[in-house]
Amino acid sequence: MIKDTLLKESKVSPDALEALYRALGKENVITHIEDRVCYSYDATATLQKAIPDVIIKASSTEEVSAVIKVADKFIIPVYPCGARSGLSGGSVPLHGGIVLDTTRMDRILEINPNDLMATVEPGVVTKRFQDEVARYKLFYPPDPGSAEFSTLGGNVAECSGGMAGLKYGVTRDYVLSLEVVLPDGSVINTGRRTLRSVAGYDLTRLFVGSEGTLGVFTKITVKLIPLPERVETLLAYFNDPEAAADAADGIILGQGIIPKTLEFVDGICINSIRGYGGAEIPEKANAFLLIDVDGEASLVEKDVAGVEKACWEHGAFQVVVAKTAKEREVLWAVRKSISPALFKVAGRKLNEDICVPRSKIKEVLRELYSLGERYSIHSACFGHIGDGNVHVNFLYGYGEEDEKKVAEMVEQMLRKVVSIGGTITGEHGIGIAKAEFLPLEVPSQEFQLMKSLKKFFDPKGIMNPGKIFIS
Amino acid sequence: MIKDTLLKESKVSPDALEALYRALGKENVITHIEDRVCYSYDATATLQKAIPDVIIKASSTEEVSAVIKVADKFIIPVYPCGARSGLSGGSVPLHGGIVLDTTRMDRILEINPNDLMATVEPGVVTKRFQDEVARYKLFYPPDPGSAEFSTLGGNVAECSGGMAGLKYGVTRDYVLSLEVVLPDGSVINTGRRTLRSVAGYDLTRLFVGSEGTLGVFTKITVKLIPLPERVETLLAYFNDPEAAADAADGIILGQGIIPKTLEFVDGICINSIRGYGGAEIPEKANAFLLIDVDGEASLVEKDVAGVEKACWEHGAFQVVVAKTAKEREVLWAVRKSISPALFKVAGRKLNEDICVPRSKIKEVLRELYSLGERYSIHSACFGHIGDGNVHVNFLYGYGEEDEKKVAEMVEQMLRKVVSIGGTITGEHGIGIAKAEFLPLEVPSQEFQLMKSLKKFFDPKGIMNPGKIFIS
Repeated sequence: MIKDTLLKESKVSPDALEALYRALGKENVITHIEDRVCYSYDATATLQKAIPDVIIKASSTEEVSAVIKVADKFIIPVYPCGARSGLSGGSVPLHGGIVLDTTRMDRILEINPNDLMATVEPGVVTKRFQDEVARYKLFYPPDPGSAEFSTLGGNVAECSGGMAGLKYGVTRDYVLSLEVVLPDGSVINTGRRTLRSVAGYDLTRLFVGSEGTLGVFTKITVKLIPLPERVETLLAYFNDPEAAADAADGIILGQGIIPKTLEFVDGICINSIRGYGGAEIPEKANAFLLIDVDGEASLVEKDVAGVEKACWEHGAFQVVVAKTAKEREVLWAVRKSISPALFKVAGRKLNEDICVPRSKIKEVLRELYSLGERYSIHSACFGHIGDGNVHVNFLYGYGEEDEKKVAEMVEQMLRKVVSIGGTITGEHGIGIAKAEFLPLEVPSQEFQLMKSLKKFFDPKGIMNPGKIFIS
Repeated sequence: MIKDTLLKESKVSPDALEALYRALGKENVITHIEDRVCYSYDATATLQKAIPDVIIKASSTEEVSAVIKVADKFIIPVYPCGARSGLSGGSVPLHGGIVLDTTRMDRILEINPNDLMATVEPGVVTKRFQDEVARYKLFYPPDPGSAEFSTLGGNVAECSGGMAGLKYGVTRDYVLSLEVVLPDGSVINTGRRTLRSVAGYDLTRLFVGSEGTLGVFTKITVKLIPLPERVETLLAYFNDPEAAADAADGIILGQGIIPKTLEFVDGICINSIRGYGGAEIPEKANAFLLIDVDGEASLVEKDVAGVEKACWEHGAFQVVVAKTAKEREVLWAVRKSISPALFKVAGRKLNEDICVPRSKIKEVLRELYSLGERYSIHSACFGHIGDGNVHVNFLYGYGEEDEKKVAEMVEQMLRKVVSIGGTITGEHGIGIAKAEFLPLEVPSQEFQLMKSLKKFFDPKGIMNPGKIFIS
């Protein structure tokens, strides 16, 4: 694994610091070491840490532009960030310089129920936005696991997916228009406030998922859809992860039901949360599916029956249907506790985020468990099985031996995934975590094309340097 | 209006022609004037025509690559095309050179019901593909009005929208991966065969809607969804176009129903198809909505009732619900006959394709009818009102006076549309038809950014030159 590094010398010269003071006021330019250390890492705790020289908490497009103009002039790395809940190191200030924190830009500027759209600043927390639009009976479907603290700016930068992707798509499918501060500090607007537009190239979607390497989003316009009338939650227990995968197919292909969420959790994950104090998990459970179905009330009832049927047919030994909102919360709390709970199994975990065509899921699971046995390292799997997006967690201890093993396992897994038409990251992004493996998936010419695009937008290489491309 | 032009001198030198012969075999390089004239225009009949020097009907990626390599070497314009049913002149070989016809590349390479995806060559006709996947109970929703002859390659190039956009999205939302021959003849693959991937920049969606100016698509992988169990069709007549617009709002906002299609047709269009021999249209009809609702059978029944209710509430004086597939076809034939029928009103029509936030529809209609009165030129409107996408047809006669009038009307309309947050093209693309107006919508810096991207991908300017950007 990559070692922690501390910044040797400041990337922000006295002249540059003075320029930042002039542009933003001294009180808005943070240089205390305590603050800087807090910005040296993100949710990917096992990755490289790096301490920035300066932190700016911007409160407007003008301030973002002013910061970037200084960075452009003095050639200082700029690391934009939201809640830093990303899982690929996308916001880690790898080469020091300026962290540009957008969390203070947290206004919901407009919710327009008539046109089914809303405009927000990048620092708005995902869950807050979901709740706010729900008051208008509207629905913003992208729902990353970190929705309670992640920001919409971060979601757009990473093209967050989350729980509801199979039925409702991912962040990319909802962004209509962006205000972007480019790496020279200029401000552009992409897209339109209309449900369709084909006027020129689709710059909007080039920025979505660009991981903060092409510019900083300062306004985001998204489309919304009517809030489904009803949601029901089921939890189905299986003896065998492959039976759960079969049941997922049974729901989609057999019953023709596209559930709102179709979450898979394997036995290793289950063991890590036993005694969590929420739902009681049967002793023999070696996998479960957590399924939300939503829509018009009578259809939801029908779909609940269809989902149950598919689960029984494919070997579920217990199916729980939540009867109240409280029961739904309990079932979901179980699912959401997994990611943090996995840390306790062996001390460390490496979270990978592969995605394969759904028909290849069982093949991949088999490979992962066999890898786990071969290396005596647990491969705990959960994720959005409907999309083929599996979060693989290698649970390992401290020490070089385990690190070496996990590094080998990751490489073998990713080679397998790419060989069957999959991707090394379904929703977490490349960041630092997967940069060394991107060339494994993206052929040389496409890789060079992406690198050239980066250079085209950011010739001085100041926007989130060290991410996505390392070679 | 732009005048027809005939090519003065060939862009394909004897050496270049020889190179094409060597690369493709002489029999595959068409130079007869009769064929060339046939390729001098597209469905936008009133636009500029231009005769190409050579036509190549490619049958493989290798052939496409070989042609483009010759074009790159000799700096010859290449005009890729499918069925040439586009409505912005996107496939017109404006500067002569080579027309690269991909209609022979018409194989459906794979339909994968398990993974809900399919891979096709670019020449596959949209309707054929829709029908083929329907045999597997799968659904490819993008449905341009020209689906019976348009090709999927053309659909991707223009990011076709069509009838089902509000509920199901547009072409962009279905393309997972592309094989693209770049302007230097090299072949790349973008995206993945997975429902999600965030591995690097989203090249796929940069190519979707790029109107053949960045490369030629030779393989297209799209996602599919389960075919809805049932579709029902309603036609509601109104005295007043604004009442129809209110009813559309009533369906979406009042009833919370997102119909599969929500087509608006105004009185001028209706008059052009009276006596068409299909459905009998009531004398006093001055607008109609044609609505498809689809989904699970019992829900469709409920939605039909909800749609009917909204129509009655907002002033419909007659609502027809199709009882049989045959009746559905009759209602739809009426809608689909409008575009060609409008020609007969005054001899010529100019088809514009504006899209506005739906709450601005009535304001735009008012402006259009008032423009029509002021200039004594009919503005016939129909289109996808759910998305705010209105096809405006200025019906005018031969002669310079009418041409001048229409040119003024178009400019005034587009300025209005842009001023209220709309776009000058919802689905037809910029092509030649709207190139002069693109800077009206896209601010100078974004416009220059798009032009620079074009130059980045196509430094010699050989891919579909003369389109999108004229200044």
